[in-house]
Amino acid sequence: MSNPAPGGGKNVDPALSLLARAATGKPGPHPPVWFMRQAGRSLPEYRTLRAGTAMLDACRQPELITEITLQPVRRHGVDAAILFSDIVVPLVAIGLEIDIVPGVGPVVDQPIRSSADLDLLRELSATDVPYITDAIRALTAELGPTPLIGFAGAPFTLASYLIEGGPSRDHARTKALMHGQPVLWHALLNRLAVIAREFLRVQIDAGAAAVQLFDSWAGALSRADYERFVLPHSRSVLEPLSDAGVPRIHFGVGTNEFLDLMRAAGAEVVGVDWRIPLDEAVRRIGPAAVVQGNLDPALLLADWPVIEREVRRIVAEGRTAAGHVFNLGHGVLPDTDPGVIGRVVELVHSLGS
Amino acid sequence: MSNPAPGGGKNVDPALSLLARAATGKPGPHPPVWFMRQAGRSLPEYRTLRAGTAMLDACRQPELITEITLQPVRRHGVDAAILFSDIVVPLVAIGLEIDIVPGVGPVVDQPIRSSADLDLLRELSATDVPYITDAIRALTAELGPTPLIGFAGAPFTLASYLIEGGPSRDHARTKALMHGQPVLWHALLNRLAVIAREFLRVQIDAGAAAVQLFDSWAGALSRADYERFVLPHSRSVLEPLSDAGVPRIHFGVGTNEFLDLMRAAGAEVVGVDWRIPLDEAVRRIGPAAVVQGNLDPALLLADWPVIEREVRRIVAEGRTAAGHVFNLGHGVLPDTDPGVIGRVVELVHSLGS
Repeated sequence: MSNPAPGGGKNVDPALSLLARAATGKPGPHPPVWFMRQAGRSLPEYRTLRAGTAMLDACRQPELITEITLQPVRRHGVDAAILFSDIVVPLVAIGLEIDIVPGVGPVVDQPIRSSADLDLLRELSATDVPYITDAIRALTAELGPTPLIGFAGAPFTLASYLIEGGPSRDHARTKALMHGQPVLWHALLNRLAVIAREFLRVQIDAGAAAVQLFDSWAGALSRADYERFVLPHSRSVLEPLSDAGVPRIHFGVGTNEFLDLMRAAGAEVVGVDWRIPLDEAVRRIGPAAVVQGNLDPALLLADWPVIEREVRRIVAEGRTAAGHVFNLGHGVLPDTDPGVIGRVVELVHSLGS
Repeated sequence: MSNPAPGGGKNVDPALSLLARAATGKPGPHPPVWFMRQAGRSLPEYRTLRAGTAMLDACRQPELITEITLQPVRRHGVDAAILFSDIVVPLVAIGLEIDIVPGVGPVVDQPIRSSADLDLLRELSATDVPYITDAIRALTAELGPTPLIGFAGAPFTLASYLIEGGPSRDHARTKALMHGQPVLWHALLNRLAVIAREFLRVQIDAGAAAVQLFDSWAGALSRADYERFVLPHSRSVLEPLSDAGVPRIHFGVGTNEFLDLMRAAGAEVVGVDWRIPLDEAVRRIGPAAVVQGNLDPALLLADWPVIEREVRRIVAEGRTAAGHVFNLGHGVLPDTDPGVIGRVVELVHSLGS
């Protein structure tokens, strides 16, 4: 396991990674399986390691990032690691005052609501996030053939946090600005798209073998609004990365009405939550669809027979897609028994593609 | 405006109410318009009246209920009143310890998680909620031809509050119980259905001219889970009320994947949020569909030209339905300018059916 050369992500042989196989529609022995938020509060070893360290401090320490990212790979035997980080990390790196408050989420000191506020959003470069590059280099050395997934928050989801000043149930100010001040809206999302793209580029250059763009809250929008106000910006994150040679995953919750558009933004793999079955998602996206999902994270709190039935259903339906990456429909819930996650990995591995 | 006889709801002449016309597919001069949460924090006169009175106390005082219910009718000229109440009122009336915490929502003292807890849920009768009967009698006398809409929370949404102990983003315990303990789940929802049905029956008997069943959080479910775990219980609320002769409205947020099932539960009118256009909702429900919605409440915070364009679109698309009740896709947001609501009413009234 030698340190990869700069641009190592481009040199990963897809034949070695189940994730790269699934993303390009090549057969493999079984679907690759990983879990959103697999590195996190469900693991006792994570809680121990994080004790006394604030989230954003942890996200800027290469050794902590590396160790936390590796924990679920060691414990569960998942087929991919995902970088331990947060979608606001690049925003903090360019100087925004954001805190991640336990039990609440990101809280923004100075919400963005006017064109003057745009000046806060300068471009990001690799020198702003040295801990990301350092952690990814260490990780790819440790992980060997297991791919590391880098990620970024999508422009809409980042904009919602910045405009609302924190998490929001209704995204009311965000939508009001989107519809009422479209010039400001597009200027804001333009800037966020540049930041997200550069954050992903830094991760790919350091060795990430895949990237996921999280547009967690895009499902609050209608298809028409998504297409007009969001898609162009998510596309400007993803499309320029097409030459990087790594699978691009595009994920949102409740985006069942526009999964095809999320693919059209420039993604090889489209995340599907639990609201529609995978075979229905494939019908909506088209026969070349590669999908990721779609186990309801809440079901991991139910008894094993319930989970087993759902996993079998999802793997079976995933066979209607050109490729399937087994995952949850959203992140692992903190109360999840890690033993159950391990059993799911074993089951998926036993089922075959 | 005389007091209606007991059972007055059954004697309302549908010819007099735009709402009853729309619900039964009869033409009218324009779509009826009302707003979920039209009685509430967006109105300064509401905030004045509520000052110093806790929500659940206000919900048990007939004079306050009456006055708060009338406020938006007087101010906005809407085509229907909706009873000022809360979905947890019948649960509190049978003895559950629930508080409505400002900025949070209903908080349940003793969450329901075992079959022993079911004993907390006895049947409801009119004598448990005399303030509801008194308020509705006073209201129907005041309102004259303007219909009063009664309402109840649907079994799933009530169950989520009772199982989680309060509002929830992921409904994790609820889904775990639903899948993991189906016998307990169905027993719980059976009891909640009886309570919801009786609560609606009390309101109809007192003079409510329509009822709405709020399954606000059902959109957290897949269609398959909704059909199996929720639909039978919502049906057992709505179907027995078919002889009452009042329109039944069935509403949820993010339920775009199973609007047809919400109609099949026994509703004349199906609520549609903003995620799909009304004409698409009609395609999904069928040509006999009567729909209610679908203006995004967040858009009321945008400028008037944006709102006007959306209102015109929705009224135009509503013409593809057998009937259309103009409304929001969810409740009025507290920051909404009441002047804007009045302008929307005027615009809808000017557009014609």
